[in-house]
Amino acid sequence: MLQKPDQVREAVAGFEPYSPGLSIDEIRQRFGLDNVCKLASNENPLGVSPLVREAIERNAGLAFRYPQSGNPRLVKALAEHHNVPENTIVLGNGSDEVIDLLIRCRAEPGQHNIVVNRPCFSLYPLQARLCGVELREHPLQADFCFDWKGLRALVDENTSLVFITTPDNPSGYCPLAVEVEAFARSLPGGCLLVIDEAYMDFCATPDESSCATGHADGQSYSLLPRLAEFGNIAVLRTFSKSFGLAGLRLGYGILPPRLADYLCRVRLPFSINCLAEAAGLAALCDTDFYQQTLTVVSEGRSYLFTALKDLGCRVHESHSNFLMLRLPEACRFDAGQMFAALLERGIIIRHLKSYGLPEYLRISVGDADENRMLIRAMGELLK
Amino acid sequence: MLQKPDQVREAVAGFEPYSPGLSIDEIRQRFGLDNVCKLASNENPLGVSPLVREAIERNAGLAFRYPQSGNPRLVKALAEHHNVPENTIVLGNGSDEVIDLLIRCRAEPGQHNIVVNRPCFSLYPLQARLCGVELREHPLQADFCFDWKGLRALVDENTSLVFITTPDNPSGYCPLAVEVEAFARSLPGGCLLVIDEAYMDFCATPDESSCATGHADGQSYSLLPRLAEFGNIAVLRTFSKSFGLAGLRLGYGILPPRLADYLCRVRLPFSINCLAEAAGLAALCDTDFYQQTLTVVSEGRSYLFTALKDLGCRVHESHSNFLMLRLPEACRFDAGQMFAALLERGIIIRHLKSYGLPEYLRISVGDADENRMLIRAMGELLK
Repeated sequence: MLQKPDQVREAVAGFEPYSPGLSIDEIRQRFGLDNVCKLASNENPLGVSPLVREAIERNAGLAFRYPQSGNPRLVKALAEHHNVPENTIVLGNGSDEVIDLLIRCRAEPGQHNIVVNRPCFSLYPLQARLCGVELREHPLQADFCFDWKGLRALVDENTSLVFITTPDNPSGYCPLAVEVEAFARSLPGGCLLVIDEAYMDFCATPDESSCATGHADGQSYSLLPRLAEFGNIAVLRTFSKSFGLAGLRLGYGILPPRLADYLCRVRLPFSINCLAEAAGLAALCDTDFYQQTLTVVSEGRSYLFTALKDLGCRVHESHSNFLMLRLPEACRFDAGQMFAALLERGIIIRHLKSYGLPEYLRISVGDADENRMLIRAMGELLK
Repeated sequence: MLQKPDQVREAVAGFEPYSPGLSIDEIRQRFGLDNVCKLASNENPLGVSPLVREAIERNAGLAFRYPQSGNPRLVKALAEHHNVPENTIVLGNGSDEVIDLLIRCRAEPGQHNIVVNRPCFSLYPLQARLCGVELREHPLQADFCFDWKGLRALVDENTSLVFITTPDNPSGYCPLAVEVEAFARSLPGGCLLVIDEAYMDFCATPDESSCATGHADGQSYSLLPRLAEFGNIAVLRTFSKSFGLAGLRLGYGILPPRLADYLCRVRLPFSINCLAEAAGLAALCDTDFYQQTLTVVSEGRSYLFTALKDLGCRVHESHSNFLMLRLPEACRFDAGQMFAALLERGIIIRHLKSYGLPEYLRISVGDADENRMLIRAMGELLK
């Protein structure tokens, strides 16, 4: 029984919201700066593809119509893109929505549990909590590799979902597909492994033909090309990173068909906006832009890795479009101070305090100018 | 315990999805038609405002950035528009998301209940079911007026939410504000009354200065201008109808501040896409377009009401941008057949079978050409 009309459920009271990166406008205003460079949210360094921009402009006049329920054109295009059946694809208002739907569909409050790494993408624990579902967290190893054994030990017959992110955020670590496969095969019959591949495109080396399938250095990182061999894996992908559509909110899951059907039934009827659909279709066509993105990220990542090392930073190897680091041991700044000092100079990066890693920073790979600007500023501050 | 990785919670198994109106593309393809007229989803007959279109085109290049969390500019503009405090406003990916969040925040599964009219907007029962919350439905009166007494009788100390829609869908009926007020004041202390005013703008007569506040014929229909007097009312509004942004997904609630704060914490961090925010801001500025919309709807509604009556249809008076009707008593078609016959001629209206009203049709007010096209086609079919 609630006592007041503005009172909320116990699970919601005291809920701490997701902690987003700061926006350029906020920093411009706060410090009176004209030129602000944002390397905080792993956005696309090349911006929006020209084909996407055209598609948005062409479709702007249709914004008064409700989207077509189920978004069949985009589902078809994605099925072709990944060579998977159409009935395995579930679109969402960002993959965030697919994560939420997976929990709402699969996890019975007070009965099931969800297993994740710690730290992990904060939406897994947030939505589990909102749904009233037990969350079990296993710490990553000291080097940020996954402890598969430890993770598996948390799984029992009431575990309905395990979430992992590959490549992982914020470390950039990516396990090999064979490791993920062994883990998937070890799970009990009722458990679904959800592999969040938001950053998988960056795992590949851009000169290989098989970017979208997560091959690099002759190694394979994604199970997506072999998904049909498994009945207990769901893969999440997004248009926010390599396709440059973060602001339009478009993500998707590739799921066992029966589960995909349920998610589509339960999803809010028009959760994908009409311009996201048009933009997604255009983005899949703009292979030039996509390849350029991978090249710019790959080159920028190499440059930043070396330059940050040269400054004495302890940088983790990354398979993604960001780098995680600690400052040099003998640094007069701590990570929070470095974050704040860069902010004053108009450079937004991410202090990983909200990930429970207060000594760590995460820097998104920008374009060549942005990367140089960051290294120059950090060089001056670390002198 | 789940047995299979594609199995879902009991509440989800057998879930019937929301039943949307058909899209123009579907009908074009199915019947090989060039010219299809959609009067099925209560969209804006004037399309997209020119200022909105410009705003979308101007902002297309920013679609690679995540939206600013909390959308402060749009919240501020809406607070000014309605003359309410900023901390009462919760934006959503359509008001659908706000409905879902209200239930998730306020209704404890297995403990609380939700009270609605029958029939009602199908999302109230759908989301209640998904959340595992008991739904109590009270039938509308035979003339589609609300039976306040009967509705109140379903409310007990475990009722956390009552949803009503004013003007109501699909009937177009709108109770006076004084009736709603009396009902709100009769509710027990822990119960929140949610008034879905998606169609309230159409309640007003367009030549009155107070359109957005729901005055017409010297009568008052909305409690929004007096919301601060109540602690137990939330009002929902949308940009989908009078503002012409259905495809962009933008709705909002005006809530008691403490509850609004909780909904914002729980909401997916970037659920409002960046073009919806830009479009919403532009739509609020385009008062010409808004006034023209109200004029076209008001004139079209009068024309359709009279013309349908002249054809012998039994039409309900409507305060909204649609009309509900039954066919003439001695008609050789039933409602489903009329719907199908119009479809073949390229006119999409709504058969209200999914509302549990198989004898009824709902027609959205179109522009003058569309309205005439409908009346001509129905006239021929009813001859």
